[in-house]
Amino acid sequence: MTSVIAPVRWTGERLVLLDQTLLPGRELEREYTRWEDVAEAIRALVVRGAPAIGVAAAFGVALAARQSAASTGEALLADLETAIKGLASTRPTAVNLFWALERMRGVAAGLSQGSVAQARTRLAAEAEAILAEDVAANRALGDHGAVLVPSGARILTHCNAGALATAGYGTALGIVRSAHAQGKVALLWVDETRPVMQGSRLTAWECVREGIPHRVIADVVAASVMARGQVDLVVTGADRIAANGDTANKIGTYALAVLAKHHGVPFYVAAPCSTIDPSIASGAEIVIEERDAAEVRRIGPQQTAPEASPVYNPAFDVTPAELIAAIVTERGVFRPPYRF
Amino acid sequence: MTSVIAPVRWTGERLVLLDQTLLPGRELEREYTRWEDVAEAIRALVVRGAPAIGVAAAFGVALAARQSAASTGEALLADLETAIKGLASTRPTAVNLFWALERMRGVAAGLSQGSVAQARTRLAAEAEAILAEDVAANRALGDHGAVLVPSGARILTHCNAGALATAGYGTALGIVRSAHAQGKVALLWVDETRPVMQGSRLTAWECVREGIPHRVIADVVAASVMARGQVDLVVTGADRIAANGDTANKIGTYALAVLAKHHGVPFYVAAPCSTIDPSIASGAEIVIEERDAAEVRRIGPQQTAPEASPVYNPAFDVTPAELIAAIVTERGVFRPPYRF
Repeated sequence: MTSVIAPVRWTGERLVLLDQTLLPGRELEREYTRWEDVAEAIRALVVRGAPAIGVAAAFGVALAARQSAASTGEALLADLETAIKGLASTRPTAVNLFWALERMRGVAAGLSQGSVAQARTRLAAEAEAILAEDVAANRALGDHGAVLVPSGARILTHCNAGALATAGYGTALGIVRSAHAQGKVALLWVDETRPVMQGSRLTAWECVREGIPHRVIADVVAASVMARGQVDLVVTGADRIAANGDTANKIGTYALAVLAKHHGVPFYVAAPCSTIDPSIASGAEIVIEERDAAEVRRIGPQQTAPEASPVYNPAFDVTPAELIAAIVTERGVFRPPYRF
Repeated sequence: MTSVIAPVRWTGERLVLLDQTLLPGRELEREYTRWEDVAEAIRALVVRGAPAIGVAAAFGVALAARQSAASTGEALLADLETAIKGLASTRPTAVNLFWALERMRGVAAGLSQGSVAQARTRLAAEAEAILAEDVAANRALGDHGAVLVPSGARILTHCNAGALATAGYGTALGIVRSAHAQGKVALLWVDETRPVMQGSRLTAWECVREGIPHRVIADVVAASVMARGQVDLVVTGADRIAANGDTANKIGTYALAVLAKHHGVPFYVAAPCSTIDPSIASGAEIVIEERDAAEVRRIGPQQTAPEASPVYNPAFDVTPAELIAAIVTERGVFRPPYRF
């Protein structure tokens, strides 16, 4: 690994993913040459974070073109369609996945007249463009958002909306990075983010690497530090933003927004425009992924609940727009009422 | 184990504790003949829950009397004072610990004229009385609290304020038990309660044993189920209640109280009168125990945060009286403004 965090890389022939299920204990990159394996990696959270899974899925389509034995454009399109559908079925909530796959589908459709070899090259280039655009969007977003951060800020974040959740740099953590580069961050409170611990495992790991002053807390501690006046703002990422600004994000985000309102702390959402889904009017239409009970019943080999106990394990919740002080994108800071 | 959950038992010669650090994976009773080992068991959470540690500490004093080589009442009193101070230094927040030790100290002081053998008998009897009174108080408390539970109730609780947290039966879970016996409990939402998982490990284990319908959730899920109208009331235990009703309880309780207020859900506290500390006017005076960072950085052998990441790990928080709809004790249901 270089000092830049690159959770999704393309070698020209293979997709390389940093296995996020092993962090922070172990840094292991895995190589992929088949779209089916990329789909499984998305499902198993080897790569996670709305923008990152969009980029990974785009490369999955590029790999499908390389895997295909098609000799005609039409046969290739049929193979790509199978891969796109398979990749789309991995996780239901993050819209970036569908956005990236739709973009790859559009490119494929426009190429049906060219040679299969040209199509392969063009699809890989498109996935690389999606990756590069995501990094650029994050940097722009980070700079826009840093304006919202006061000097000496104590910021609280949830889950990982960092370099690991994107093609690099991060969204919510991108704002923290930009503000930290400007010397404005006194402390980042890192919610550990049960059940998958993306905060303590991933965000804290990024903070250690980059020297961002931080403290890890169990999710239930956030209210106490707010009550003591030790949080100046909350910022999280997003998995899907409805046309009215309602935002789906990692389970626990909604609770933070309610707590922030109670304590008079501004609550911000950070996401690239590819996370906005103008096709849905409000958060009520967002499908919430429910994940396996094992994520709650066990942590590694440790049993944390009886096997006989039923579990409810939603991966996301929806924060209503009225609890969100602003939504920060690469196009700037949006305030309510939201018109994207 | 019999079907009755008895986390603290006295054999007449030894104290027997059900090791709560091993649940739900393993049910193991440990025997104690030395007060120093009882103190360590309290510190290490072998026994936990405000009423239960009060009872265990009382037996610790009874063991100290058995351990003492004193031949005079005065020498015995000096040995007991050492034990009382040692037991009092184990955990700072739960007032029941100090209440039980003070009661044992009072009995010891009144016995200084009698024989050492008589004193040993009398101290063991007092600890047994504290245990029996706690169970009786819990049953009375449960019946008072069950009146607050509507038919078909969906109840949410945090941590373990059950049989395991007391001498038996439970406080918050005692109310659930009584209401369940009356056929009124549709569902108990069990917050897992990071970092020590007393909800998913202990409360869920009690529910499985007693057939109480329940679902385990990560703490961050509570807000979502409230938002969907799936919670009719919240009830938790308490570790110390100030004269004005401000209540210290397991970290995360305060967040639940804020969330309950936001969603119009009544938030109740259940505790025996021994948990009320009339010597402090408000929650601002309650000492909050901060525990080891390892509780957050690791779960069993699994690393969940980088070793290099600083951690803030308070074990309790304080819920202001104005967020509490009622406090249920063995003497009945108290409503604000609180006059105990």
